[in-house]
Amino acid sequence: MPRGGSGAAEHPNTRENLRVVLVGTRNPLNIGAAARAMRNFGFRHLRLVNPYKVAYQEARSAVNAAEILRAAKEFPALAEAIADCHLVVGTTSLGHRELQHPLRSLEYGGRLIRNQLASAKVALLFGSEKFGLSNEDLSYCHWLLRIGTEGSMKLGQAVAVCLYELTRQRASGKPESRKRASAADLERLTALLTGVLKESGYVHSGGADAKIRRLIRRLDLPAHDAEVWLGMIRQIQWKLTRE
Amino acid sequence: MPRGGSGAAEHPNTRENLRVVLVGTRNPLNIGAAARAMRNFGFRHLRLVNPYKVAYQEARSAVNAAEILRAAKEFPALAEAIADCHLVVGTTSLGHRELQHPLRSLEYGGRLIRNQLASAKVALLFGSEKFGLSNEDLSYCHWLLRIGTEGSMKLGQAVAVCLYELTRQRASGKPESRKRASAADLERLTALLTGVLKESGYVHSGGADAKIRRLIRRLDLPAHDAEVWLGMIRQIQWKLTRE
Repeated sequence: MPRGGSGAAEHPNTRENLRVVLVGTRNPLNIGAAARAMRNFGFRHLRLVNPYKVAYQEARSAVNAAEILRAAKEFPALAEAIADCHLVVGTTSLGHRELQHPLRSLEYGGRLIRNQLASAKVALLFGSEKFGLSNEDLSYCHWLLRIGTEGSMKLGQAVAVCLYELTRQRASGKPESRKRASAADLERLTALLTGVLKESGYVHSGGADAKIRRLIRRLDLPAHDAEVWLGMIRQIQWKLTRE
Repeated sequence: MPRGGSGAAEHPNTRENLRVVLVGTRNPLNIGAAARAMRNFGFRHLRLVNPYKVAYQEARSAVNAAEILRAAKEFPALAEAIADCHLVVGTTSLGHRELQHPLRSLEYGGRLIRNQLASAKVALLFGSEKFGLSNEDLSYCHWLLRIGTEGSMKLGQAVAVCLYELTRQRASGKPESRKRASAADLERLTALLTGVLKESGYVHSGGADAKIRRLIRRLDLPAHDAEVWLGMIRQIQWKLTRE
């Protein structure tokens, strides 16, 4: 099972309903890279529109994505590749204004796609390395997803970033569950360190205690680390006072 | 100017303060792909630790990222590559539990990094294609960023996804106010403490170095506190070795 991190639950159909559609890809390495990104993020339905024969054959040997490539489907034309999809979204690093598509950010558009994936198949289109999606390709799209970058992205990287956004957990990060050191441990540590610092001549008066206590508290130590520090300072103290 | 989408304003230092650090990368195409992802998302400071000579020379010819590659800096060892950084974060697709690093999701960890970038340099580490980051590399990290995928990602794709997350618009997130200790200060502290622990008989072999380095990184010290600790441990060392 793909892991999506903790937090908000993902709809079970999200990954099953997406079709990643590569249109006119030339470089076999790029097909392999796209497939690998899909595997990384738990997607598995790859469709290739009119790929160069050589590219497709070579891509099949790509590492870590053999299963996706074996199951990939080839189509001579885009219309057939997306026929069963209820939402068709083109990706672009620029803005194709000619056909006046709504242009959506990856974050906002990603949310729309995710909502749709819960109940229907969605096609996400990536154009050729050199020319992107043609106006003909774009005419099949409901709207465009714009990855807000400088210059065009490598195909595999664009796929990775889009799939990351589609699977990103929504809930904000939770604090860690590490057990913190007890106040008693911290106080023992404070006393020990203060003793060592007096013994070594770093502090003289008793007035430094509060400063050292604060210094120790700021470390915000996990319980396990507090024990290690206690052991280290005990040993140093023993060595200092043994003579 | 790089575009960050509409919405919440991004701090102007965010992209300037990040150092993308590739450790032991073998394949020139991967160095080029990482540089291209950086250019796409408006970052420009690339550091290479011990790259294979051939890889680096070939990478320089990568399309669309020539400027970043020309300005990239090479370092023989990781410690030097991150010396001026105040937060060092390693990336992993798994979970390296051996050194007990806090493991943060890309979304939550990305927010912490962004907050830090407003005021200080941050190093984001990517390991070699085959082995990832070594335990030695990891011992320099404050915490780890986990990209929650199935299997390991292609290097360039991992870089792209991380940089996308760092620049994605977001409403919340205040810049962090306290300045953290630099990696160079933390390394000085590690060396001093290791010396004192050897002197006092707490550690014997050299094998403890990585553990002590991790222990110090976990303290997550502000710059001012690091100075205080350096002063304290120097004094203890002086006292221990005076006799």
